[in-house]
Amino acid sequence: MSGHYDVLETRDAEARETALMAALPGQVAHAKSATDHYAEVLAAVDPHAVTSRAALAKLPVTRKSSVPAMQKARPPFGGLLPRHARLVRIFQSPGPIYEPETDQADFWGYGRGFYAAGFREGDLIHNTFAYHLTPAGRMVESGARAVGCPVIPAGTGNTEQQLKVIADLRPSGYCGTPSFLKILLERARETGADTSSLEHASVGGEALPPALRKVLGELGMKTVLQGYATAELGLIAYESPALEGMIVNENIVVEILHPATGDPVTAGEVGEVVVTLLKPDYPLLRFATGDLSAVLPGTSPCGRTNMRLRGWMGRADQTTKVKGMFVMPTMIAEIQRRHPEILKARLVVTTVDNLDAMTLRCEVAPGTAGIEHRIGDSLQSVCKLRGKIELVAPGSLPNDFKAIEDARKYD
Amino acid sequence: MSGHYDVLETRDAEARETALMAALPGQVAHAKSATDHYAEVLAAVDPHAVTSRAALAKLPVTRKSSVPAMQKARPPFGGLLPRHARLVRIFQSPGPIYEPETDQADFWGYGRGFYAAGFREGDLIHNTFAYHLTPAGRMVESGARAVGCPVIPAGTGNTEQQLKVIADLRPSGYCGTPSFLKILLERARETGADTSSLEHASVGGEALPPALRKVLGELGMKTVLQGYATAELGLIAYESPALEGMIVNENIVVEILHPATGDPVTAGEVGEVVVTLLKPDYPLLRFATGDLSAVLPGTSPCGRTNMRLRGWMGRADQTTKVKGMFVMPTMIAEIQRRHPEILKARLVVTTVDNLDAMTLRCEVAPGTAGIEHRIGDSLQSVCKLRGKIELVAPGSLPNDFKAIEDARKYD
Repeated sequence: MSGHYDVLETRDAEARETALMAALPGQVAHAKSATDHYAEVLAAVDPHAVTSRAALAKLPVTRKSSVPAMQKARPPFGGLLPRHARLVRIFQSPGPIYEPETDQADFWGYGRGFYAAGFREGDLIHNTFAYHLTPAGRMVESGARAVGCPVIPAGTGNTEQQLKVIADLRPSGYCGTPSFLKILLERARETGADTSSLEHASVGGEALPPALRKVLGELGMKTVLQGYATAELGLIAYESPALEGMIVNENIVVEILHPATGDPVTAGEVGEVVVTLLKPDYPLLRFATGDLSAVLPGTSPCGRTNMRLRGWMGRADQTTKVKGMFVMPTMIAEIQRRHPEILKARLVVTTVDNLDAMTLRCEVAPGTAGIEHRIGDSLQSVCKLRGKIELVAPGSLPNDFKAIEDARKYD
Repeated sequence: MSGHYDVLETRDAEARETALMAALPGQVAHAKSATDHYAEVLAAVDPHAVTSRAALAKLPVTRKSSVPAMQKARPPFGGLLPRHARLVRIFQSPGPIYEPETDQADFWGYGRGFYAAGFREGDLIHNTFAYHLTPAGRMVESGARAVGCPVIPAGTGNTEQQLKVIADLRPSGYCGTPSFLKILLERARETGADTSSLEHASVGGEALPPALRKVLGELGMKTVLQGYATAELGLIAYESPALEGMIVNENIVVEILHPATGDPVTAGEVGEVVVTLLKPDYPLLRFATGDLSAVLPGTSPCGRTNMRLRGWMGRADQTTKVKGMFVMPTMIAEIQRRHPEILKARLVVTTVDNLDAMTLRCEVAPGTAGIEHRIGDSLQSVCKLRGKIELVAPGSLPNDFKAIEDARKYD
């Protein structure tokens, strides 16, 4: 599947860099004048001087992990949304973090990634990302609209009903987590449901190990390409059919910073992904995602000339994603609060048959037994995910202050 | 809450009737030329002659209950969608029936009903209708966009999380079923969550008994007004603060027909609601909903001059709605197919504490016991609703061929 979304993605890399740097002063000035947060943190900054990566690197970082407190202080958006933005929707992600969507076309910049994934005007897309409270479903819709693809808003769950819809409507595209695509295709094999229309998948929300990509190919998918996005920043980078790293989206500036020092890492080293958006509706500047990645040197053979990332390489803090949902240390603390019998808890995330699985290991006092079921209900209620509960003796868990251990293999 | 959405709804009733009749010939011609279904069923009809209700009443009816078969014959929309419509989304409702949404602004005409319900530009709306496969959530969004209201796409479930969002974001409007509004407000009372921002509710998807409206008022709602809509036709009629029947939407023609004969009923009598849409994107002509209603004589004191309906008065067939979801005799048949031990089944729908409840009463052979749990799982899986299972002896159920008995009180 060849072709390009527009001329921006194939322009000379130097021309792009010149254009991005030329846009910075105006965007910094806009953020400073239109939002309360940047008016405050950029009070001493002259926007006209921010004309290079070096100058950008001197501006303060705004951390995703700080947003819940910022939003409590300045509801609902922590002073990050321009005062005159035309708000259309508000979403909630765990934290809680509230995310705006304005009436700007393709607010999350997903169209470019979809085009690279093989979606073309008129292709019908089966979208299994959730639409309820989380922006995931809408992010996909905004991209599909940009490319000109009608969408089946399937959402999560109801596997049997989704297979019926796929057989009847014959969508060619799939959006969602790769693990749910595997569930759909395997269930179809078992039940004889026709999923032969599905050719291209744009997946995200969780890691895609090479083994899973291979399985999805064996189950009939022509291409399965990843998008890397966050609820605030939209699409940061996307895979192309070249399958060489993830190409950074246009109109954003990506920096990779050392998680501890905040300094730019040496080219190619792993660090935290920090993004500056150049769109007027949500001028996030140096927004630190908490995600780890690294620059992949060189240029993609697909013709796209932008910087490439190695994809999502974990979280700078302990927050992780399980089956596409964020699981945070604060959630484990909440479960402990609900069950004082738990002396210490550690959530262990593993991979079982290419799917995420989790086990909450709980140190409990001797004489406490039979509470696994109630703790399991709390785990489900707090994390919106099922997991096993394992009671262990006091002193059994490692003494490393980790509430979440990501024991998945990503190779 | 006074004011009107536009001048159409307060115009002279005769002027409206003249305008509707003047628009009919063009719409009939459009449907005939742009869609395969109407090209076929109107082959012998001269559109230019359809200039009156009497002439319209001679056109064939298209029954909602026939749509699944029509769509099987002509996928995906049964030849009902104009060939050049700019499709944006496809939904699935039980049947299955596939419903299109095009890029036409406020495709389902919900804006007028929202304005009457008290929603104004800038008001934040908490939308608890589902977005996954069903169009309900999107219908609300299209109306909110028309009025200029940002939306929290809350969807179904996650009551605790929804209460947190309401307390944090302070929406003034609620959309969803009235029973879920009751659940939210009562849970808020129990847990101390702040729902004081909620003032106006636009409810639908199930009946609103006066007792429930009273309870919702006592729980803090200023107004709770109903909309009557279907997934194909959009908003058919809506309540206004006058609380006198449901006012028919603009740009549609409503007929009330005798369910057995198909003839127009005498004014004021109960019959099936049959709707003709005048919008170009989905020119449904004489579309029979299967819903029962009646015209309420006179004019609303709120200044809106259109015909009024008495609201939803049940289904012309046995299909009914439980907690906002359609439950159909074919679903009960599917459960019987899965459990050959069931000799005969009858779903009894009742009201318990103002909420819908259902019990599947199953005649089983002597010696069969302990299968309630498995049947209960099938009920949940097929109907997407929980219900009680009651095993009874052969011959216990009435011999009236009814698979679904609606034992709710609507007074």
